[in-house]
Amino acid sequence: MEIACLDLEGVLIPEIWINVAEKTGIKELLATTRDIPDYDVLMRQRLDILAANDLTIHDVQQVIDTLTPLDGAKEFLDWLKSEFQVVILSDTFYEFAKPLMRQLDYPTLFCHKLGLDEDGTITDYHLRMADQKREAVKRFHEINFKVIASGDSYNDTTMLTEADRGILYCPPQNVIDEFPQFPVATDYEVLKAEFLKARAEI
Amino acid sequence: MEIACLDLEGVLIPEIWINVAEKTGIKELLATTRDIPDYDVLMRQRLDILAANDLTIHDVQQVIDTLTPLDGAKEFLDWLKSEFQVVILSDTFYEFAKPLMRQLDYPTLFCHKLGLDEDGTITDYHLRMADQKREAVKRFHEINFKVIASGDSYNDTTMLTEADRGILYCPPQNVIDEFPQFPVATDYEVLKAEFLKARAEI
Repeated sequence: MEIACLDLEGVLIPEIWINVAEKTGIKELLATTRDIPDYDVLMRQRLDILAANDLTIHDVQQVIDTLTPLDGAKEFLDWLKSEFQVVILSDTFYEFAKPLMRQLDYPTLFCHKLGLDEDGTITDYHLRMADQKREAVKRFHEINFKVIASGDSYNDTTMLTEADRGILYCPPQNVIDEFPQFPVATDYEVLKAEFLKARAEI
Repeated sequence: MEIACLDLEGVLIPEIWINVAEKTGIKELLATTRDIPDYDVLMRQRLDILAANDLTIHDVQQVIDTLTPLDGAKEFLDWLKSEFQVVILSDTFYEFAKPLMRQLDYPTLFCHKLGLDEDGTITDYHLRMADQKREAVKRFHEINFKVIASGDSYNDTTMLTEADRGILYCPPQNVIDEFPQFPVATDYEVLKAEFLKARAEI
């Protein structure tokens, strides 16, 4: 009995912060953990920038509402749900993901939450737990599921390592180089084949 | 951050064994744990009856394929997915549930598995673990989710007790009497209201 764990941004939907930066024209929101390695410092800076530009969660959701899942993502997810029990593991926030989750028919998503005040100003953020993707895979193992996981980036590799099989999807070259143990898929047809192959092996 | 855990049979879909018994006309398949309290004895008897009637998983799935979710179940589930992260916790088997899961757009389902031989004869059954509904709720708590759970029958009460809030849905009178601590919903509109009330309280 298998659970398929999927990362969200870069696998099913575009990168949210980058798109918010581009659509609002606020270049400072392009900063990532490559620029500011301390995630908390980065997130505080992002929230300060949103506040300085008078952008509430409603404004940000309106921007995100103009985004669509990656080409073919919905069809891939529909197929995956018909073959496996799917849980999306993402380090985004429910309030950001929601407009895109609606377009994907609301698959089950484990992520984090923003702190909002009454008028929608984003005052804080709440990580549900550290390394939540890996922790979720561990818990699925404890209730006797096999887990096949797929993600695109460095922060997915603890999840991929914890899973019975890990598959990289369209990763950057440095991740491919550092984790040669994981097969690499660069389109959904190959990703489907890798999921089926993984299931046959475990 | 909340997960909604839902029982399946009696909440979203009809009772599978009862319907298989009625549609095949094999009265012996009407037996439940009320008649044969030892679940293993009951399941072995069911599999023996299927074998004696030359019914493979394909035949049983064909019968199940004629069933539909309960009236309003799809709309209720779609609403629940838009408000909560949903995981269905059921003691049925994936092979039985699949034709009905397809009609519900394949929500994430944790249940059990049958043992099949090459021509589809059901040779065995594999419970993923004992008391799996309660164990899943415990694991969701460990990864910092609140859990609101709903089910209709006695075997859901450990899940409802483990959850932060439990809601009975169309339960038999003996369950209402024995578990007066759980609110009772008898239609989906009331069940929606109970989920929202539970979320506001936890």
